[in-house]
Amino acid sequence: MFSPLLIFLIIPLVRAVWPLPQIYEPGNSTLWLSPDVRFDFEGFETPSYTSTFSVWDHVQRIFSGLQTTQAKPQKSLSLETLQQVSIERLNRGVFQERFVPRKFHQRNSPFEPKLEDQQSKIYIDRIRIKKVSIQVGLLSQLRSTKEAYAINMEADGKVIIETASENGVLHAMETFRQLFYAHSSSSVDAYTPYAPVLIKDAPRFEHRGLNLDISRNWIPPSDVLRVIEAMSLSKLNRLHLHAADAQSWPLEIPAYPELALKGAYDPSQIWTKTDLEIVQGHGNLHGVEVFLEIDMPGHTTAIGHAFPGLITAPAMDPWDFYAAEPPSGQLRLNSSAVGDFVLGLLNDLLPRSKTWSLYFHLGGDELNRNAYGLDPTMNTTTAAAIKPHLQRFTDTNIDTLKAHGVTPIVWEEMLVDWNLTLPSNVLIQTWRSSEILGEVLKKGHRAIFGSNSHWYLDCGKGTFLNPNTTEGDAKARIKPPFLDYCAPFKNWRQVYDYNPLKDIPKKYQHQIVGGEVHLWGELTDSVNLDNMLWPRVAAAAEVLWRGPGNPVSEDVTRRLAEMRERLVLKGVKADMVQMEWCLRNKGGCSL
Amino acid sequence: MFSPLLIFLIIPLVRAVWPLPQIYEPGNSTLWLSPDVRFDFEGFETPSYTSTFSVWDHVQRIFSGLQTTQAKPQKSLSLETLQQVSIERLNRGVFQERFVPRKFHQRNSPFEPKLEDQQSKIYIDRIRIKKVSIQVGLLSQLRSTKEAYAINMEADGKVIIETASENGVLHAMETFRQLFYAHSSSSVDAYTPYAPVLIKDAPRFEHRGLNLDISRNWIPPSDVLRVIEAMSLSKLNRLHLHAADAQSWPLEIPAYPELALKGAYDPSQIWTKTDLEIVQGHGNLHGVEVFLEIDMPGHTTAIGHAFPGLITAPAMDPWDFYAAEPPSGQLRLNSSAVGDFVLGLLNDLLPRSKTWSLYFHLGGDELNRNAYGLDPTMNTTTAAAIKPHLQRFTDTNIDTLKAHGVTPIVWEEMLVDWNLTLPSNVLIQTWRSSEILGEVLKKGHRAIFGSNSHWYLDCGKGTFLNPNTTEGDAKARIKPPFLDYCAPFKNWRQVYDYNPLKDIPKKYQHQIVGGEVHLWGELTDSVNLDNMLWPRVAAAAEVLWRGPGNPVSEDVTRRLAEMRERLVLKGVKADMVQMEWCLRNKGGCSL
Repeated sequence: MFSPLLIFLIIPLVRAVWPLPQIYEPGNSTLWLSPDVRFDFEGFETPSYTSTFSVWDHVQRIFSGLQTTQAKPQKSLSLETLQQVSIERLNRGVFQERFVPRKFHQRNSPFEPKLEDQQSKIYIDRIRIKKVSIQVGLLSQLRSTKEAYAINMEADGKVIIETASENGVLHAMETFRQLFYAHSSSSVDAYTPYAPVLIKDAPRFEHRGLNLDISRNWIPPSDVLRVIEAMSLSKLNRLHLHAADAQSWPLEIPAYPELALKGAYDPSQIWTKTDLEIVQGHGNLHGVEVFLEIDMPGHTTAIGHAFPGLITAPAMDPWDFYAAEPPSGQLRLNSSAVGDFVLGLLNDLLPRSKTWSLYFHLGGDELNRNAYGLDPTMNTTTAAAIKPHLQRFTDTNIDTLKAHGVTPIVWEEMLVDWNLTLPSNVLIQTWRSSEILGEVLKKGHRAIFGSNSHWYLDCGKGTFLNPNTTEGDAKARIKPPFLDYCAPFKNWRQVYDYNPLKDIPKKYQHQIVGGEVHLWGELTDSVNLDNMLWPRVAAAAEVLWRGPGNPVSEDVTRRLAEMRERLVLKGVKADMVQMEWCLRNKGGCSL
Repeated sequence: MFSPLLIFLIIPLVRAVWPLPQIYEPGNSTLWLSPDVRFDFEGFETPSYTSTFSVWDHVQRIFSGLQTTQAKPQKSLSLETLQQVSIERLNRGVFQERFVPRKFHQRNSPFEPKLEDQQSKIYIDRIRIKKVSIQVGLLSQLRSTKEAYAINMEADGKVIIETASENGVLHAMETFRQLFYAHSSSSVDAYTPYAPVLIKDAPRFEHRGLNLDISRNWIPPSDVLRVIEAMSLSKLNRLHLHAADAQSWPLEIPAYPELALKGAYDPSQIWTKTDLEIVQGHGNLHGVEVFLEIDMPGHTTAIGHAFPGLITAPAMDPWDFYAAEPPSGQLRLNSSAVGDFVLGLLNDLLPRSKTWSLYFHLGGDELNRNAYGLDPTMNTTTAAAIKPHLQRFTDTNIDTLKAHGVTPIVWEEMLVDWNLTLPSNVLIQTWRSSEILGEVLKKGHRAIFGSNSHWYLDCGKGTFLNPNTTEGDAKARIKPPFLDYCAPFKNWRQVYDYNPLKDIPKKYQHQIVGGEVHLWGELTDSVNLDNMLWPRVAAAAEVLWRGPGNPVSEDVTRRLAEMRERLVLKGVKADMVQMEWCLRNKGGCSL
């Protein structure tokens, strides 16, 4: 080795865990993990029922690449389930996936502890998991103590995990397993170089979500099972399924069989009732609450394939006067048939969906006024004339949700652009700017953030629209370099750098429930889904868990790069975080 | 169906073939392809030797996911090989991959021919392939008639393919198979809806390449086999392997065993001599000539791990005064040890590599002058003082190539920035602008195009550099939104829209040998490789085959989207071309 390269020979402090715990005090001693490690659960309730549903079978079926299983999903996290999931996390995550962090160390450097000396190896062979009332202490500013946990791993191998809830166990086990690496010279040896470790942790935001569009292109339920697994590694806890849009209606609604049969792209591309239940149940097993959005009254064209009478301005040519993207078409607002349809739809969906989540998203974005000029019962394009109809439509839907005990979420336009009167329990999802987030909070509503300037993962890959060359190139409105409206591409650093609280007065911040990172589906299908999501969703997850405002440092790069390797080992085709040279040579790629 | 949607019910003219043939006259009758179709080869020479190497085994080994095989690659396309490859292309491409173009037609529309009436089904059961002197006729402006071919498929099922060469057979078979679709209701039925078909085709450019960086991150040889397969579908014929750079030296050089052992990221991340031979041989079987670049004298830091004495300014901190990216380090220029090393290197590589390609790329880009201020034998940073050394270094290397009968390629800087005197047979690869391309041509050299404004596939994913937060955020030079130097992302439309001939006077155009699309590897490894390459490399391939200047129309979108589905069926995890709704509804996504 020639001498100037020596500047990079300082052993890099790989700190492993993503998202970074609120309090994290790692040491630098080695402990080994026994493959036969025992779990002792203390203070948890006896399971209310003994499940015949095996998490092991379930998970193995998914990861052997089979389509969704018919097994009955779990409705509650029983002690038995919790034990299985905990063992599974550690076993698969450490001993099967076998992460050897070679590329985080200087080339040809000896970075692993020695295997030989069996005498002096200290093993962890027992993990005590206690359910306690977490003493928040330094974490008092954190909102959601029910997901809190603490890990105390002592130098002699004693491990005590304290959690406030069952979900805390899942988080603790994931943090714990991320402290371990497989040894490259042995298939049964795994170690942590970070002992002793003290961790106290709880999330900054209660609602830590991903909004996934399963409508614009076909996303099979089996893919979403993998997305849920990956989300749980980053401690995300909400999956918002944007389940229908103008382009297709993939969701089976038993009350209206024609809806998906005619509205899905193809009869083979339908999310059946069972698919949805399995995805929601799988989410539950991984601490991820899966809720649905039926976007209304805009973004509804696909309903017209089964029920043409409900839609105004369907698939107009040209479309751009009537919609933000093709095809145009919206639910009529002055139609009892539409009212009956939506009531039937919600009465079908809500009883099933509320088993898994007490949220339901009613949509409400990008409503086009011109479309109502073509609706003979409305015959107007003015906001003033449309608003009373929109208010009545929304009131009715919110009442239906209330009857089912479900909390509504709507897009910001309903409150900010249309100035509708909404009950105070309605959660407002903002997407355009932090000015709008501030406006929503000022109106007294709780809100979800996720600005398109940072958290729209679809941006920057180019427009999906075709130049209209029938009128000659000169008139084409799609011009080089063919960017989309929200370009540039949001690289992971930009995602991480998002600070939704920046211009929000302190007095309003408690109304912020959390945020969601978004993947709109115009240019995403099953083949490129992983690449579009990861590692960027994980970058957002640390903002949501730890809180915003942490600088984009090399340390963040290195931890996220480790996380990406864990995702890859789980079968997720994640995009890259950093060049191998930079990971191997700490400090070498700064500017 | 509600009436306005009817505007999209016109049967879309899916024209299937990518790249579009120069002359393509499809019909609209149906012909069926017999699974037992016979090939009659006429006019080809008796194979010079009978190979014991089975293409079938080879291809199947690759696609069952195994690592590279030890089988001996083919050195010439014998008649036997040609027959095997032809049968394989059709069999795998049509009957095994089974492309059913459902998403290119209106939902729930009957787009397939009826299977029932066995009597009236006309089958193609024999394909005559004749080697002839192609009458160029309308193709007279095309440069490379040796790859020309013609297909005449008559309505009665008679098929005659004429080709000027063995490579023409490969192209013809790929075009032919792209005319066929699998039938969704039968595993043995495949049809073309485009009969009768007349095709006359030859490439606009002789050199149609991809420059793939296998140095900055580990790209396994097995991945490159898949890249070659995919390239051959788009009729690309040159794979430029950027085989070493500052960050790592993955290439085994038997004359210098330490070079890769110490210079690769890890001993498990080495391209062995056999790996290289298999990749080059695999290329040969697919009509893709694989040639190497050893970039010199810049981009050579990794040599210093084995031979520290050869490198000036290695891995300096800060690096940015000494290199375009970290780590800094260049070959000394006034050193007989460097001369001896490079001679030994080329004498090791060239005899092996020239079996497969008579090109060798000597690099020469981004040479940093400051690095030579730290070289005690040079002790200068002025271009005037460095130039004579660079001229001598380059002369020597070009002489070595000449002794092996190999044509040199160098980056544009050698001619344009350093104004070196280069023999007229040296091919100049341009990358910065069409002004520079024009300048190179004016100096009388033949050139390769590939501007970073359109054909740098790595651009726009964000910088790989870390902010230097040790000096405080305010001083960090890496700022939001963390873009890279050549952002934005080059979406496939921008790739397709590239017209390298635009500002080039007609009288110089014959000096343009062709072009290459580039994937620099800072943020690409085995996991995201397919996504970074496809479908964008295919978009570039049509520019190279058909010639530039074709408008980015919906028709192009639809054909490229079909091509992408073929790539996906071959196991390539390609990015998306277009939303399914737009493909199903012709004209619906124009603006």
